[in-house]
Amino acid sequence: MEAARLLWNHPHADLVAATGRSLAGKRLGDAFPHLAAYDLEITPEIDADVDIVFSALPTAESAAACEPFIRAGIKVIDIAADFRLKEPGAFEEWFGKPHPAPDLLPSAVYGLPELNRDAIASASLIANPGCYPATSILALAPAVAAGIVGDQVIVDAKSGISGAGRGTGGSFGYSEVNEDVSAYKIANHNHQPEITQELSALREGPKLRVTFVPHLVPMTRGIHATCYMPLAKSVTQAEADEIYADFYQQTPFTKVTSTPPHTKHTLGNNMCLVHPKVDERNGMLVAVGVLDNLVKGAAGQAIENMNLMLGLDQKSGLDFPALYP
Amino acid sequence: MEAARLLWNHPHADLVAATGRSLAGKRLGDAFPHLAAYDLEITPEIDADVDIVFSALPTAESAAACEPFIRAGIKVIDIAADFRLKEPGAFEEWFGKPHPAPDLLPSAVYGLPELNRDAIASASLIANPGCYPATSILALAPAVAAGIVGDQVIVDAKSGISGAGRGTGGSFGYSEVNEDVSAYKIANHNHQPEITQELSALREGPKLRVTFVPHLVPMTRGIHATCYMPLAKSVTQAEADEIYADFYQQTPFTKVTSTPPHTKHTLGNNMCLVHPKVDERNGMLVAVGVLDNLVKGAAGQAIENMNLMLGLDQKSGLDFPALYP
Amino acid sequence: MEAARLLWNHPHADLVAATGRSLAGKRLGDAFPHLAAYDLEITPEIDADVDIVFSALPTAESAAACEPFIRAGIKVIDIAADFRLKEPGAFEEWFGKPHPAPDLLPSAVYGLPELNRDAIASASLIANPGCYPATSILALAPAVAAGIVGDQVIVDAKSGISGAGRGTGGSFGYSEVNEDVSAYKIANHNHQPEITQELSALREGPKLRVTFVPHLVPMTRGIHATCYMPLAKSVTQAEADEIYADFYQQTPFTKVTSTPPHTKHTLGNNMCLVHPKVDERNGMLVAVGVLDNLVKGAAGQAIENMNLMLGLDQKSGLDFPALYP
Amino acid sequence: MEAARLLWNHPHADLVAATGRSLAGKRLGDAFPHLAAYDLEITPEIDADVDIVFSALPTAESAAACEPFIRAGIKVIDIAADFRLKEPGAFEEWFGKPHPAPDLLPSAVYGLPELNRDAIASASLIANPGCYPATSILALAPAVAAGIVGDQVIVDAKSGISGAGRGTGGSFGYSEVNEDVSAYKIANHNHQPEITQELSALREGPKLRVTFVPHLVPMTRGIHATCYMPLAKSVTQAEADEIYADFYQQTPFTKVTSTPPHTKHTLGNNMCLVHPKVDERNGMLVAVGVLDNLVKGAAGQAIENMNLMLGLDQKSGLDFPALYP
Repeated sequence: MEAARLLWNHPHADLVAATGRSLAGKRLGDAFPHLAAYDLEITPEIDADVDIVFSALPTAESAAACEPFIRAGIKVIDIAADFRLKEPGAFEEWFGKPHPAPDLLPSAVYGLPELNRDAIASASLIANPGCYPATSILALAPAVAAGIVGDQVIVDAKSGISGAGRGTGGSFGYSEVNEDVSAYKIANHNHQPEITQELSALREGPKLRVTFVPHLVPMTRGIHATCYMPLAKSVTQAEADEIYADFYQQTPFTKVTSTPPHTKHTLGNNMCLVHPKVDERNGMLVAVGVLDNLVKGAAGQAIENMNLMLGLDQKSGLDFPALYP
Repeated sequence: MEAARLLWNHPHADLVAATGRSLAGKRLGDAFPHLAAYDLEITPEIDADVDIVFSALPTAESAAACEPFIRAGIKVIDIAADFRLKEPGAFEEWFGKPHPAPDLLPSAVYGLPELNRDAIASASLIANPGCYPATSILALAPAVAAGIVGDQVIVDAKSGISGAGRGTGGSFGYSEVNEDVSAYKIANHNHQPEITQELSALREGPKLRVTFVPHLVPMTRGIHATCYMPLAKSVTQAEADEIYADFYQQTPFTKVTSTPPHTKHTLGNNMCLVHPKVDERNGMLVAVGVLDNLVKGAAGQAIENMNLMLGLDQKSGLDFPALYP
Repeated sequence: MEAARLLWNHPHADLVAATGRSLAGKRLGDAFPHLAAYDLEITPEIDADVDIVFSALPTAESAAACEPFIRAGIKVIDIAADFRLKEPGAFEEWFGKPHPAPDLLPSAVYGLPELNRDAIASASLIANPGCYPATSILALAPAVAAGIVGDQVIVDAKSGISGAGRGTGGSFGYSEVNEDVSAYKIANHNHQPEITQELSALREGPKLRVTFVPHLVPMTRGIHATCYMPLAKSVTQAEADEIYADFYQQTPFTKVTSTPPHTKHTLGNNMCLVHPKVDERNGMLVAVGVLDNLVKGAAGQAIENMNLMLGLDQKSGLDFPALYP
Repeated sequence: MEAARLLWNHPHADLVAATGRSLAGKRLGDAFPHLAAYDLEITPEIDADVDIVFSALPTAESAAACEPFIRAGIKVIDIAADFRLKEPGAFEEWFGKPHPAPDLLPSAVYGLPELNRDAIASASLIANPGCYPATSILALAPAVAAGIVGDQVIVDAKSGISGAGRGTGGSFGYSEVNEDVSAYKIANHNHQPEITQELSALREGPKLRVTFVPHLVPMTRGIHATCYMPLAKSVTQAEADEIYADFYQQTPFTKVTSTPPHTKHTLGNNMCLVHPKVDERNGMLVAVGVLDNLVKGAAGQAIENMNLMLGLDQKSGLDFPALYP
């Protein structure tokens, strides 16, 4: 749904097929009135010639559905979690079932251009990052890569409700969720290993240990990750600022801010805003990252990856301001 | 305003005077329509015989206004921050001005009955806890007191907007705050020393080091404090559960829950819900505390203190369920 | 759930049984954490001696479940719609099925004390008003009864989402409902005949014609009914004010306000606020009514009716301020 | 602010100057972080060569500021209310001060392309419609123009809070507005004469009488106008559908829907959705209109007018889906 919204204005890409299971047979605009301008029917399977496929099916089903396209040489971007964890056995450990196509794992590239721009450009299969990991990794990466952080970090993440998906029933009913904050899956969310994997690749020494606690807050879109990094050495605010500024000097969609960013400053667009703050009293670096979970945390990120894979301008179709207020 | 709401149904207390500066001369029910049942005019000064005074004036002004009552032997509960920090110089360090009545500081009791029940009962001057500290301390205290926690903890707090006070202007306008999460005063909020002071008193060894980061989330009431405690020794979930259950065995307004609590489960009432969770992978104890910032985080807490000071049942006027949903 | 919340502080009533179908076997406090103070298990049937029964089952099922109690001489308050429409055939016309116990209809009293106080006091079976009709009737009644209104009125009602009930699935998911207003069942909602019936009884002449359009607005609780009444004769603002003030001179839970009331001024309590405004340019009377749909619009109203039926003070257990802000 | 957001992606227009009073001297991106991509400083006066000027200053100040540009032959779109009311004296009657440039009124064109497309294309001065009138007129116009409506209509409008403007202080603080619905300026809002004027021009006979009641609902953006039209003759649903379909057959930004539209289906884009429903029981036509008050209700409408005035495609820069959910 969100990819379709974004693709409407993409100068070099056309949406030619949209699949669905419960919605198959409906016009796209009947299922989603804001997409009424599309003249497209939702089909059970892709029934058109395509250059690239986005998949957002449930875990394991996504890999199974992607497999024939991958083997046929068609580029695939998997928005599900199926191709993210590289370590053999990690998928089964965290998702409770065997991976449907483990031989494809080595060729999958983790689709975060801020870290893997070149690999994405030459990849055929992209593991699109989870919304929590995208926010967390982008907030943590500069400090971790600079070697100023100890072996353990904490990520306290606050997410809008759309991160929980559509039709998720009673637990996310308006009346229950509104005016409420709660934590869930404390230190046990399956987005944690993804954060660990990607950050550990940026540093020397042992694997980073990550305590990850997600929270639901009463808003539709947006993730705010507050990351706590006990420092391995003394670092001033000016040094931290420079480390972050250097790391994100060239990245079109991740920017460093001089004051704490608001999730609303990224509402509906592909931007990630990052802000480092040194707690000198306690030898701690606090870094905040914010983004729209459905855009830079999912569909926008996928289109950014598509742009790189197809040799287009990285910003094609994604260069517009947030909706504010 | 919130104390008046709660006192309406208190069986042993009558509200006989309500002061205000900008609202002086108005009927209470004209200023606050939900309090229309009170037959009371807002006056610039207390103009009635009173047994106890609640003050919620701005910092430093509150102490100045309380002083004559204290010296006249009338019990005072200060909801402002003026009498909370015991260390000489701490007030000036964090609030940027000298304390107006430093000689009164030693007699002030920090009004958190879960820690100081007996001292409150015999006190004449209560420093009512801040809303963030109340939540944080109640989530952290059992573990800190049990000696299982290292020297450094992190508190990531999420607050509804009413914590910012009334008439706070443009920054808290609906359109800007709605659908937004942001951090502020990162590791530099003046509620941090209060948390440090009260928790350090519960343990042996050096002062606890506290990194405190507050956030605003789009809801009116509620605070959710997620507290991260690197463990000083190995602790199982069962042990953590027992430590918390024992600590809060007798406390009428703080309860331990078996699943992560929701702020909405305390909407409008005086309850604080606490939940400990061990992150065994990382040797970390995560404890969550939730409460209504205007009730257990302010006016309800003040009435609970009043009950103890006057020898009443601790639960008088405060024993009712949360408004849910 | 809401009746249980309110009954906790009722001085003369004890909740001795709570029934449920999907939740049977659970402790009340496990199903609804804010009710944890109750020591009660949810049972499939009432398994205790009771003086009065509240039923909030789905349409038609409620009447069937109430019937044995009524026939056994136990007082019943039906919060469902089953006993509201007096006219033979009206139930089937609007709800699409035959009434399960039509012989009980004549003895049922419409439970709006502002109109039917004495009849309620001597009734054994109460049809508790719907939340929309309660708001609408209370806003319209004084003008209709005074004979200043023509034969046709319009009610534009705005409701919070809790009016739609629990577990109502995808349509009321947070992400879809938040930041959205929409109308539904335009001029075709089954609460319309109830409004027509009760208001027509207040006036001479033909049945009042009512165009009723409900809307969902993004809040949990609250109904705001804006009622448009073309005037049958010229009426000044002062005359309208007097008509309303006289009508509600003695009613403890309906009050006339001098400025447009806010739903939030009734959040969580049993108050209904009403405000008339004459549009002299157009010969129209506009009257606004607001209340909390779960309290004065449902469970609070039911307890108010119970108080009257049992000869208790009408305000027993219901005399407390709204939660504001 | 909103015009700047929309102009970022306009293929034929560049924002070359942005003025402000309190914000003068700041970078646009410092004042509004979501506009950080603009390399522009806010200035007290327009300091660049411009082809067209948008003004959104307060009433009367706007006309004064626009006047020199108009007299210099530069096209002007006034988003304020200054040039909307044609009748001599109407401005002073509703806004309480004399009009600063009454001689310019005759040349101003009311900028609603659904009604005045050709006049807009050749105009030099556009009175951009108010957000309430835009929604109301678009919902009412087809029926009024078809002559099926009596002399009197009612508009019940629900608006998000951003309609109230920025920095509007305490009354629109988050905690007070959240979870609240209220009416204001009942039958006395200064957007009413604008609705009357434009609709009366579409019909034979006396001026239409309009009762207009605005409400605030807790959301940031969006207006929902529910319009009640007593029918002058019998009309079936099929006839009403045809009247609306015909009227909006060619309009790119107003579409008729077959079910009640949601404000959220227009969030952030320039669409207005309209839906007619006949209440046959009562001889009433109910028509709903929804749009985003800051886009089709203000800045988007202004850009649509600019496109027409400059001979560009009407949809230039405005052809993108709503942000949903």
